[in-house]
Amino acid sequence: MRKRDLLTPIGITLGFIMIMLAIISNSGTEGVASFADIPAIFIVIGGLIASMLITFKMEQIKLTGTILKEAFHKNDMQLAGLINLFIRLSERARREGILALENELENVEEPFIKKGILLAVDGIEPEVITDILNAEITAMEDRHYKGRLLIEKAAEYAPAWGMIGTLIGLVLMLNTLSDPSTLGPSMAVALLTTLYGTVLANLVFTPMAAKLEAKTEEEVFTKQIIIEGIIGVQSGQNPRILEEKLSAFLPKDYKGKNEAEDAAGYVGESVNEA
Amino acid sequence: MRKRDLLTPIGITLGFIMIMLAIISNSGTEGVASFADIPAIFIVIGGLIASMLITFKMEQIKLTGTILKEAFHKNDMQLAGLINLFIRLSERARREGILALENELENVEEPFIKKGILLAVDGIEPEVITDILNAEITAMEDRHYKGRLLIEKAAEYAPAWGMIGTLIGLVLMLNTLSDPSTLGPSMAVALLTTLYGTVLANLVFTPMAAKLEAKTEEEVFTKQIIIEGIIGVQSGQNPRILEEKLSAFLPKDYKGKNEAEDAAGYVGESVNEA
Amino acid sequence: MRKRDLLTPIGITLGFIMIMLAIISNSGTEGVASFADIPAIFIVIGGLIASMLITFKMEQIKLTGTILKEAFHKNDMQLAGLINLFIRLSERARREGILALENELENVEEPFIKKGILLAVDGIEPEVITDILNAEITAMEDRHYKGRLLIEKAAEYAPAWGMIGTLIGLVLMLNTLSDPSTLGPSMAVALLTTLYGTVLANLVFTPMAAKLEAKTEEEVFTKQIIIEGIIGVQSGQNPRILEEKLSAFLPKDYKGKNEAEDAAGYVGESVNEA
Amino acid sequence: MRKRDLLTPIGITLGFIMIMLAIISNSGTEGVASFADIPAIFIVIGGLIASMLITFKMEQIKLTGTILKEAFHKNDMQLAGLINLFIRLSERARREGILALENELENVEEPFIKKGILLAVDGIEPEVITDILNAEITAMEDRHYKGRLLIEKAAEYAPAWGMIGTLIGLVLMLNTLSDPSTLGPSMAVALLTTLYGTVLANLVFTPMAAKLEAKTEEEVFTKQIIIEGIIGVQSGQNPRILEEKLSAFLPKDYKGKNEAEDAAGYVGESVNEA
Amino acid sequence: MRKRDLLTPIGITLGFIMIMLAIISNSGTEGVASFADIPAIFIVIGGLIASMLITFKMEQIKLTGTILKEAFHKNDMQLAGLINLFIRLSERARREGILALENELENVEEPFIKKGILLAVDGIEPEVITDILNAEITAMEDRHYKGRLLIEKAAEYAPAWGMIGTLIGLVLMLNTLSDPSTLGPSMAVALLTTLYGTVLANLVFTPMAAKLEAKTEEEVFTKQIIIEGIIGVQSGQNPRILEEKLSAFLPKDYKGKNEAEDAAGYVGESVNEA
Repeated sequence: MRKRDLLTPIGITLGFIMIMLAIISNSGTEGVASFADIPAIFIVIGGLIASMLITFKMEQIKLTGTILKEAFHKNDMQLAGLINLFIRLSERARREGILALENELENVEEPFIKKGILLAVDGIEPEVITDILNAEITAMEDRHYKGRLLIEKAAEYAPAWGMIGTLIGLVLMLNTLSDPSTLGPSMAVALLTTLYGTVLANLVFTPMAAKLEAKTEEEVFTKQIIIEGIIGVQSGQNPRILEEKLSAFLPKDYKGKNEAEDAAGYVGESVNEA
Repeated sequence: MRKRDLLTPIGITLGFIMIMLAIISNSGTEGVASFADIPAIFIVIGGLIASMLITFKMEQIKLTGTILKEAFHKNDMQLAGLINLFIRLSERARREGILALENELENVEEPFIKKGILLAVDGIEPEVITDILNAEITAMEDRHYKGRLLIEKAAEYAPAWGMIGTLIGLVLMLNTLSDPSTLGPSMAVALLTTLYGTVLANLVFTPMAAKLEAKTEEEVFTKQIIIEGIIGVQSGQNPRILEEKLSAFLPKDYKGKNEAEDAAGYVGESVNEA
Repeated sequence: MRKRDLLTPIGITLGFIMIMLAIISNSGTEGVASFADIPAIFIVIGGLIASMLITFKMEQIKLTGTILKEAFHKNDMQLAGLINLFIRLSERARREGILALENELENVEEPFIKKGILLAVDGIEPEVITDILNAEITAMEDRHYKGRLLIEKAAEYAPAWGMIGTLIGLVLMLNTLSDPSTLGPSMAVALLTTLYGTVLANLVFTPMAAKLEAKTEEEVFTKQIIIEGIIGVQSGQNPRILEEKLSAFLPKDYKGKNEAEDAAGYVGESVNEA
Repeated sequence: MRKRDLLTPIGITLGFIMIMLAIISNSGTEGVASFADIPAIFIVIGGLIASMLITFKMEQIKLTGTILKEAFHKNDMQLAGLINLFIRLSERARREGILALENELENVEEPFIKKGILLAVDGIEPEVITDILNAEITAMEDRHYKGRLLIEKAAEYAPAWGMIGTLIGLVLMLNTLSDPSTLGPSMAVALLTTLYGTVLANLVFTPMAAKLEAKTEEEVFTKQIIIEGIIGVQSGQNPRILEEKLSAFLPKDYKGKNEAEDAAGYVGESVNEA
Repeated sequence: MRKRDLLTPIGITLGFIMIMLAIISNSGTEGVASFADIPAIFIVIGGLIASMLITFKMEQIKLTGTILKEAFHKNDMQLAGLINLFIRLSERARREGILALENELENVEEPFIKKGILLAVDGIEPEVITDILNAEITAMEDRHYKGRLLIEKAAEYAPAWGMIGTLIGLVLMLNTLSDPSTLGPSMAVALLTTLYGTVLANLVFTPMAAKLEAKTEEEVFTKQIIIEGIIGVQSGQNPRILEEKLSAFLPKDYKGKNEAEDAAGYVGESVNEA
């Protein structure tokens, strides 16, 4: 299930609140105005776009919106529900035969699972199914990588254009050094582009690219569980064993405990089975 | 088909417009003149060329023009047309035999496809054809890498020579500190080389090298589809299956949809085939 | 056995003492106060948290406490005790049969060893046991990597937010340059955020991430010895040979000597065996 | 054939001319003198040597001269001549037997080819010949890598010592701030070491190391053609086929054309052969 | 044979002499005193130690002395002597049988060779001997890597603490800007920590880590020759062939010549053998 990922807007808002607080605590609310400078915004954002146009093809640039939106959403990875689905499929396949799974298709939303079940129902061999589905995962990784690259390159160009803006400002300031009273404010404006570039890179682009990367890894992980499940169902594996096998994938916390299994329980089961 | 890639000149132009705007919004049009300094241009471009001469061999340096031109062109990768071509070839080969493909050669422009068809017509074994064509892909990647290296090294040397120019300017300025009225403009000129170097690296060289890399990857990808197609045609694969197989390569957007295939359609087909 | 790792708090304390000494030796104890600036702390810590919120998912951020705690603890890797355990298990298995090891389970604390013994008692084949336990090691490495990433990203964002704070401070200071008497202290405050960010990165986050990485490697190493031991016990290996094999894993110092073995002794034994 | 590589001295000279021009255009010829400062040269070159002495062993340091000389020479890789040689060898071997190649040895200068022919004449098996000659290539790569490392480390230490010199100069200048008239020139001298270090790194060491790397790759490439040729000659391959095979190695320009082959010609040949 | 490596102390001494010369040539011998500042030394060394304590475990930190000592010693890799040893062993093994090598053990000092001979005498199979000895090499590489990491981390922390010291000094100085006469000296002191950190990293730690890495590679290389020798002796290889095989390992200079072999000589031998 796809849900809004509130952490991204919360993080960005918090970052700007911190910047506001730093300004206000220092020089009151009237100081805030001096941090908004239209030409400075233009040079950083415009320059960034210019470098992006040269770096990427039009088709990729058009994806920017989709990718940014992606950073504001998350997949509610319901691994427990996924495992239950495969237990149900496994039980039905053992009871009524593998072809009966075709009737389950309408209950399945995720296209990747649908495709896997259809391949299993078609009687394709397990190795071939694994190959086909893995190829799909690789294609997805490649697609996501290309999308993420847009954000990563933006994180690289933003501070560079910030520096270009500051250099332009400094040159202009130094050329009119005769009037020392304007020196301070001129240099302040010059520094604003570096500030914009640094904030864009470290508050927006770099964290977003990292989140997108983590999300891709998670999706790869979920899809590999699905492959395990499909193969298990097709080979008529015992639903209980399938459950135990898939549960091993459930995330654990840093020290190794997860909800479905703890060492003592495992030991008990194992001994009983022996 | 080879077409002009308008994004590269648009990006570079936009970058310079942004820089102009930043200058003009700050100090009017007369400020622009102070940003053109012949000796500063000399030291950055000349120094850059000097470092390039030591880094590369004459044969490679002569390629600079070709490579820069490459960044202003794009291949209009008509994957759909490519797939249609292989479907036509596949149908004819099944109808009239593989030797009939020789008559198709005059309609084919791309040398890589020509070579592949000829190898197939010659009755070379599929593994050998794959090896030969893959070797050609590897050679192309290597050639492109060497060309791209020219741009990447330029992106590395440009800011370094910018800094060298600034250091020279600072030393000269500090030696004649006795006259404080010239201090500002001297330092402004000193900073110009750093500005030039930074703009060259971040607006021109780095984005160009990234685009060249993406284009190489795309060309490798297209050629791998061609290999799949040639092998499929030679082995007398059913044109419909060949189409489905090659369509799997068609680019999808970030979330996994492409025009030729969507999950529902796929499911329907698959069920019918079963 | 898990013990407090005193080096982490000692190191952090020592670092702050050094900073204090540097301040006091320079300007007496009243100088210390000028280094605590609430808004500066806010911008660095708050900005850091903001970037972290965008980078990570809530589940991962919740682990921060666990991971920080982990950096203050160490596993007392008693390899010698471990080897003795496997010698005892090996002797009992040869005397009373592999099933007798079930009675040893209550004396074993470490879940990883328990799991291994149970698999051996269940009569699972050695290759399968190795696969299962190695999969567990890989999962642990992945889990630890994700935890360490939190600290590594913090080490990356802290100096960036320090720089953002300094830029904000500089802009504010330059805007009010008219009163030169406040220039020094304003700039001092501006530099504080860079100082905070640098100290956080180099005294806290980077060393902690390095320690966590070393601990993970150590745990992987211990678990690989355990796998060797379990397989040795199951295959009914001679306890003396098992001891010698496991002893080879004992850590040596930089020049290659360890307590359990020295070249001369080895030579003697070997000759006698021959 | 080994020839002087004029690009290296031309590049270095051009770099220094650019620096001169920048100085002279700014402050006339008398400004040049202020850029030569004996102590500044001492600290950068001396410090660089000091760091090199600790990094490398005496045997390696002694190679510095050889390696620098290498950067001023090039191998005139006459691939066309090489291919002709193997065609001649191939024809003779087919006519008079492989042992007749011993008489060709005196016409061959390159020891690598000599060794290969001798191994072929000795009747060593092709796989063994390939292994022996490849081992020689690997050993050469390793040797060149170690030599190049000298230059790469120098490129790393030079700017570091430039910065050390500048820091020393700044400390001295700041300690004698009482006389403001000397401030400018003192700081100018302080900056000179950074200038020296940066020029050494970006005009001399980094480009040289890149050229040495490219030359090694080229030599590896030539030697791999030689291996192909030797194996082809020994296995009594048809000289025409051998020529075509080796020609495939000939360098092409960025877009894939080479002199010995173009797509149309290839197509013609292929069709005729079919 | 283990000998003092004089280059390390010579390099460090030379580096400090260069620094002294730079100071003295600038401001006479009285300037030297201003470069020794106890609190500055404290903050850099103390902070460095603090970060190291958090990064490493006590056992590793205790190795610091051993590792530093290692950088001041070298192994006098007498490859020629090593080859002679194996020729002697080979001759004796062919004359008197492999068991006779046990009497040679007392003449062998190096434990690695001893272990290998014992394994050969014990009649262990060649593949197993290779495995055991290679495992020992891997363990040695790992041990050395962990030791070198101490120095590499120190090279990373030293400049960071230099910067922290400078920031502290700048903040203190800016807070007391009211008295401009102390500004210069205060800032000079502030810069000293950056100078200390930079010198430590670039004159001491980075070169030492590079030397330790080269020494490890050399030791790995020697031990691989030993493995070749042991296997050759055990398999009763002809001593002359063994000599030729091991001689191939002898180091050559950059252009490929070594003392034991030159192309012409090789050619002659080869021809005679044919």
